[in-house]
Amino acid sequence: MNTSRTEAFSDGVFAIAATLLVLELKVPQVESGGLSDALLQSWPSYATYVVSFLIIGIIWVNHHAVMDRIKNVNRRLLFMNLVFLMVVAVIPFPTSLLADYIQAGHDERLAAAVYSGTMALMGVSFGAMWAYAVLSNDLLLHEGVDANRARRSLWMFALGNPLYVLAIGVSLLSATLALAINALLALFYLFDVLPPLMEGDEEQ
Amino acid sequence: MNTSRTEAFSDGVFAIAATLLVLELKVPQVESGGLSDALLQSWPSYATYVVSFLIIGIIWVNHHAVMDRIKNVNRRLLFMNLVFLMVVAVIPFPTSLLADYIQAGHDERLAAAVYSGTMALMGVSFGAMWAYAVLSNDLLLHEGVDANRARRSLWMFALGNPLYVLAIGVSLLSATLALAINALLALFYLFDVLPPLMEGDEEQ
Amino acid sequence: MNTSRTEAFSDGVFAIAATLLVLELKVPQVESGGLSDALLQSWPSYATYVVSFLIIGIIWVNHHAVMDRIKNVNRRLLFMNLVFLMVVAVIPFPTSLLADYIQAGHDERLAAAVYSGTMALMGVSFGAMWAYAVLSNDLLLHEGVDANRARRSLWMFALGNPLYVLAIGVSLLSATLALAINALLALFYLFDVLPPLMEGDEEQ
Amino acid sequence: MNTSRTEAFSDGVFAIAATLLVLELKVPQVESGGLSDALLQSWPSYATYVVSFLIIGIIWVNHHAVMDRIKNVNRRLLFMNLVFLMVVAVIPFPTSLLADYIQAGHDERLAAAVYSGTMALMGVSFGAMWAYAVLSNDLLLHEGVDANRARRSLWMFALGNPLYVLAIGVSLLSATLALAINALLALFYLFDVLPPLMEGDEEQ
Repeated sequence: MNTSRTEAFSDGVFAIAATLLVLELKVPQVESGGLSDALLQSWPSYATYVVSFLIIGIIWVNHHAVMDRIKNVNRRLLFMNLVFLMVVAVIPFPTSLLADYIQAGHDERLAAAVYSGTMALMGVSFGAMWAYAVLSNDLLLHEGVDANRARRSLWMFALGNPLYVLAIGVSLLSATLALAINALLALFYLFDVLPPLMEGDEEQ
Repeated sequence: MNTSRTEAFSDGVFAIAATLLVLELKVPQVESGGLSDALLQSWPSYATYVVSFLIIGIIWVNHHAVMDRIKNVNRRLLFMNLVFLMVVAVIPFPTSLLADYIQAGHDERLAAAVYSGTMALMGVSFGAMWAYAVLSNDLLLHEGVDANRARRSLWMFALGNPLYVLAIGVSLLSATLALAINALLALFYLFDVLPPLMEGDEEQ
Repeated sequence: MNTSRTEAFSDGVFAIAATLLVLELKVPQVESGGLSDALLQSWPSYATYVVSFLIIGIIWVNHHAVMDRIKNVNRRLLFMNLVFLMVVAVIPFPTSLLADYIQAGHDERLAAAVYSGTMALMGVSFGAMWAYAVLSNDLLLHEGVDANRARRSLWMFALGNPLYVLAIGVSLLSATLALAINALLALFYLFDVLPPLMEGDEEQ
Repeated sequence: MNTSRTEAFSDGVFAIAATLLVLELKVPQVESGGLSDALLQSWPSYATYVVSFLIIGIIWVNHHAVMDRIKNVNRRLLFMNLVFLMVVAVIPFPTSLLADYIQAGHDERLAAAVYSGTMALMGVSFGAMWAYAVLSNDLLLHEGVDANRARRSLWMFALGNPLYVLAIGVSLLSATLALAINALLALFYLFDVLPPLMEGDEEQ
């Protein structure tokens, strides 16, 4: 089975999960003159919307980069992809949770830990897919991918794991700081992880 | 009419139905310090989210496997596919129903029966599509599909039906056990049903 | 501009509008033992879900049949398609409205008129697109389409209009009957309208 | 990286954001006989639905026109596209906000300013993408695009900016007038901005 349909389904889940984030932005119900204050107090909703949207968008970019390097999908990899998408699709929930409890002013560190934990789960299930594709004996990788470099890239993925643990740890100190670290982690994945594999893709 | 557009529309419904499942996860509104208990008590929401997401994802895999073996779609098959998708798209409703009533601690067996009944309806309407494609005189099947093996595969589909009846029956005993059986049923379809048809597909 | 992207965007709107219909199915909040009654009393929600899902699905089939016969899309046709999709995307609203007021037992005929009126608007805006493509001087039609038969097909579309008026009229007498007429109207479009144009399409 | 996948993801976000607008249309809960008044009083919801749907639809048309003129996407352009989509996906929120506060009869001018500001942000982030593609040294443009005409088209985009400022200013005077101006702005973009670039595209 080739990857094009897996990508179409995955793209759908990414696009819908990202767009459903808007449902956490609730129109405040206030008395006359109270709207500007209410909108300003809702800043955690906007901040979490921006961070979660960027995280989903950037993981979408990386999912495509990984899929470009995979030629065949077996049923096991399909299942791993489903589990990964299950975590992506749940992101609107911890996003609302974090926004509501930063605004409530209590229990926000537990909410942040749930948020960071979800992102960690996403990162781990994504890395597991790539590791399986690289290490499996089923010849799933594209011929244009250098097997040694692919194996070395697994270290870069593994490096992300302590950062996720760090984000969960920081959540227990400050919810806002944890949100910022998750944003930085996303930006880190935008620029640094998969480009070294570029030279071996189908454009050659 | 070929199958590519039917697949695109179907993929959209699968991806959206799976992603809408997240809307059943509600942010609990609690007093200071009460969040961890509230999150733990919501375990039925997480369990039903996971099971329903996997069921939709796995039926998506099988829908593609069936569509790969179908070359032409007539209006009758299009209509059968619509009815099948109508059942897939409704899944978020019995999922919420089951989660809410397991948590409420009453009427949960009726909710589980509705849930299992929906899955049975999905299985039956899916099997009906495949049976129609195999048995119709309209030459809907791909040439690469061995007609005898296709006809024999119908027994595998038929075998699912008593399992669905079993799941509905178990619902009346225990909602949690019924959920587990539905999960096992999904996993059974991931590994066992359509592979024997693989050799006759367009990759040859 | 060719039609493939217009179709991709339209398919997205069709699939999402159909799948969002599930959000009108609300989990009833009842005391112990009250669930079966509450579920039975919600029959208008299930009935309207089924009818609206089939209407959207069947208009999707017809939209593709029309798009297959159109070779080029100009900005005016793009705009007409947007207006048509705007009506398709709003369908979940009159669907909820009708379900809620049949169940409330009052104002249900006004709700049914709004429902039938929305379907009429969808039919008219769809017919307008096809009429524009057939009658425009911009050579929008596919060469394989017989221009005379295309012009004659406009009568079939025009015939739908008094039926829509009838459905709105019947709404003022009985909401349930109006729902049934809308279902029949959808099934009528599944079998009867565009097939006479089939012979001139790209399969030749 | 070519643009086809970026377009598929973007199309998904456009289609979902447009279709989610329907969720702002709430079924009114009224006593017997009160439905017609309640539906009439909800006119701001219908008006904002129509304007926002057309704005998203028209920006989708223009996004495709721009993407047709871009041959390669680098990571920086991908990120700019993500930021643009983040603004598109948030549109259902200011749409609900404006509808609710026009209906509430207070704070509607602040709501209109938020609405107009969101549209301005969308326009600016869209213009920035095109400007980056035109001015970058990375040879992102399609060969068929005349570089001089592309550079001159940036003036047309720049011209939109004072109009957005005007719409925000008018919001502080009248919410309804601001909504009308946003509708006109959308129609202006339907007919006028990118067609002069048509001659250099891939159809040649």
